[in-house]
Amino acid sequence: MSHLLIIGGSDAGINAALRAREMDSSMDISVLVADRFPNYSICGLPFYLSGEVPDWQTLAHRTIEEIERQAIRLWLGHRAVNIDPPNKTVTAVNQESQPRRLNYDRLIIATGAVSARPTLAGLDLPGVFHLRRMGDGFSIERYMSARHPESAIILGSGYIGLEMADALTRKGLTVTLLNRSGRILTELDPELGDMIRGELSKHGVGVVDRIDITSIEKKDQKLTVRNSQSVPLESDLVLVATGVAPETTLAGKAGVVTGIRQAIQVNRAMETNIKDIYAAGDCVETWHRLLNKYAYLPLGTTAHKQGRVAGENAAGGSQEFSGTLGTQVVKIFDLVVARTGLLDKEALEAGFDPLTVKMETWDHKVYYPGASSLHIRLTGDRKTKRLLGAQMIGSYGAEVSKRLDILATALFNGMTVESLNHLDLSYTPPLSSPWDPVQLTAQAWSLEQKFFCH
Amino acid sequence: MSHLLIIGGSDAGINAALRAREMDSSMDISVLVADRFPNYSICGLPFYLSGEVPDWQTLAHRTIEEIERQAIRLWLGHRAVNIDPPNKTVTAVNQESQPRRLNYDRLIIATGAVSARPTLAGLDLPGVFHLRRMGDGFSIERYMSARHPESAIILGSGYIGLEMADALTRKGLTVTLLNRSGRILTELDPELGDMIRGELSKHGVGVVDRIDITSIEKKDQKLTVRNSQSVPLESDLVLVATGVAPETTLAGKAGVVTGIRQAIQVNRAMETNIKDIYAAGDCVETWHRLLNKYAYLPLGTTAHKQGRVAGENAAGGSQEFSGTLGTQVVKIFDLVVARTGLLDKEALEAGFDPLTVKMETWDHKVYYPGASSLHIRLTGDRKTKRLLGAQMIGSYGAEVSKRLDILATALFNGMTVESLNHLDLSYTPPLSSPWDPVQLTAQAWSLEQKFFCH
Repeated sequence: MSHLLIIGGSDAGINAALRAREMDSSMDISVLVADRFPNYSICGLPFYLSGEVPDWQTLAHRTIEEIERQAIRLWLGHRAVNIDPPNKTVTAVNQESQPRRLNYDRLIIATGAVSARPTLAGLDLPGVFHLRRMGDGFSIERYMSARHPESAIILGSGYIGLEMADALTRKGLTVTLLNRSGRILTELDPELGDMIRGELSKHGVGVVDRIDITSIEKKDQKLTVRNSQSVPLESDLVLVATGVAPETTLAGKAGVVTGIRQAIQVNRAMETNIKDIYAAGDCVETWHRLLNKYAYLPLGTTAHKQGRVAGENAAGGSQEFSGTLGTQVVKIFDLVVARTGLLDKEALEAGFDPLTVKMETWDHKVYYPGASSLHIRLTGDRKTKRLLGAQMIGSYGAEVSKRLDILATALFNGMTVESLNHLDLSYTPPLSSPWDPVQLTAQAWSLEQKFFCH
Repeated sequence: MSHLLIIGGSDAGINAALRAREMDSSMDISVLVADRFPNYSICGLPFYLSGEVPDWQTLAHRTIEEIERQAIRLWLGHRAVNIDPPNKTVTAVNQESQPRRLNYDRLIIATGAVSARPTLAGLDLPGVFHLRRMGDGFSIERYMSARHPESAIILGSGYIGLEMADALTRKGLTVTLLNRSGRILTELDPELGDMIRGELSKHGVGVVDRIDITSIEKKDQKLTVRNSQSVPLESDLVLVATGVAPETTLAGKAGVVTGIRQAIQVNRAMETNIKDIYAAGDCVETWHRLLNKYAYLPLGTTAHKQGRVAGENAAGGSQEFSGTLGTQVVKIFDLVVARTGLLDKEALEAGFDPLTVKMETWDHKVYYPGASSLHIRLTGDRKTKRLLGAQMIGSYGAEVSKRLDILATALFNGMTVESLNHLDLSYTPPLSSPWDPVQLTAQAWSLEQKFFCH
């Protein structure tokens, strides 16, 4: 019987295990899970901390029982400490540091990422948190229950920073968001960042721009965030949300080759440089479908897909990862913000000849109650007329997420902007217009492109 | 200067005019509009009659001023009565029956469709209505304001019948829906029709199945619907919503060739058999992208697209209509129901080897508040594994319409079911799951397909 061993029990690891089982009902499949929370939706932690999700146990994509019912062995509380490729073994230790050696025929490394730690004194003070693992969520929850913080400072205005600004505001805290760049959510064009800024302001979240943090100090029960601006900032809680880094120490030690930001290099079959070792998820370099090269772009959706590919191949299949488009969506208070593909500046850097048009329209026929404003940006290549990317902002309930996915699907298929007008999309007055807003934007793009070329 | 004349001022006609203007700023463009309501959203009439849209004027996609600002001449209240292709003229009469002859270099016929009239005595009694034109809407509105009907019978359980069952119920009427087939919305698989039946029942709409109407009679201020079942049905209002037929008498008289159900035959460039005469919208046969043949499938979205193609080509362009997928969506009370592509039985008839799988899942992560049940059906071809069609039912707010459009976009591009799993779709817990529900269904399809083939 063939042994598949997977290091890591989050998105990539569990998807790999489940897919391998679908492919091969007899394979022996084991997963090393460093904590006790396999297959948890860590994306749900902000909603747990906001109180919108009362029970953290519901954050599990699947229960342990559901996974084990697929004859997948979970080694909970077992952290891999060594991979020995020549002998095809992995050594893991449990929480009492007892070592255990496991054999494998095929190995999948799905060790994920860790929170980036800026070089900054005070990161380990009580009241200063990251948010990455279930344990981080519990720590914040315990601190909030015990100390009833009234104010919070968040370092970083990326997805996690924004979701936590929303969550802690709902929880009654006064929240201040600090960002170094002077921009909110740099994944979007600045104008869209400004719309998010408006939403934050509407809900009382303060934003301080162009600020560098020098240290965090504890003083009279308060945390003081010292910074490049003259006035030190005080709060009861500090969340450091300045990004993540791939967790690849173990892989590197075993001779697995890493690349961009130390992420593991894999091919499209999710194979590493070492025979019978695959890797997937936030610990690997990700193939970008539009850039035609690898990037480090850790996302839960990608981890699911890569895990599925790795699992399929480790069980004898021949699947390929089709590449990321960097599709992302976030809900911030009543606003939903999404993007797919490339921004104008990214397209330019990648050698395209981008044209970006913006449009403000209604999510559905304005005569039907509840119509709300939708902002769409389409980026296309002037020469090939190919769609390159899209951004969208609208209210929760305006089908922003799945409307953006029309464009993600179009991008996946290499469609031109003009051809979006030929898509047979669904229409009823309460949900769209006869030309969907994405098509109205495509028409504006085509007119502008024509104008520029004549 | 070249003269473009368009007969018909609804979706196809106005889209043709606007696109021709985009293509050619100097062309002379005129539109004959039989009534006084060019470019009205007739799809919005049920929402006007329900009271959700208080002002019927807001149903205009564009105002007359907006159209005229594009230097498009609108001949309101002018009905075309003759086309003379050899002399390239059209004769129209105004509401006082005064004739006027107009020259054209290019002509676009966009005469739309009329309500189908079943062979049935009593269709012209006061209180018996169709719903197709703005005038129909006004007639119903006037009747309701003057007579305060308490009950309504609707013949037909297609899209209009269902939307009007919703609308009249909201207006306080007791509604009974009659259907001949024993099925609700035959455009969907019967099981999904049954879910709609549940929604109707929840809102107090009665449904009578397998009933043939023999006549409608007026008796003591009540309308009596005599039928094949023993008990005659009484109500204050009867709506006949038994489909539409293409309006092509004028075209036929001029020698324009018609085909399926007397709809005008066009090529993909929307040209008829007569040089310089184009046709578009509900009066033409529509190219079906999956069936690779023509069908009669009148839809507002299609009329918009065909109008745009006809207008572009009439102005010297060389655009082609890419074909319909029959994508449709309807909101019935709190339920949204959508389809694209082929049903299993339609695929079978068309010579495919279809496999349909169904899935019930959540529209977004169930831990986040407001998750609701989503039913998805995917039909794919066992041999080629190509996606052939999809159906979806969920609650309003569950992004059903634009989620279905992911599949419409995939269908347009000829994707396989398995490749849906490679789409980089957007995910945040309040709006989806890491594998979007359409991908979960695709995975179930692949497993079932594999099981059948091994």
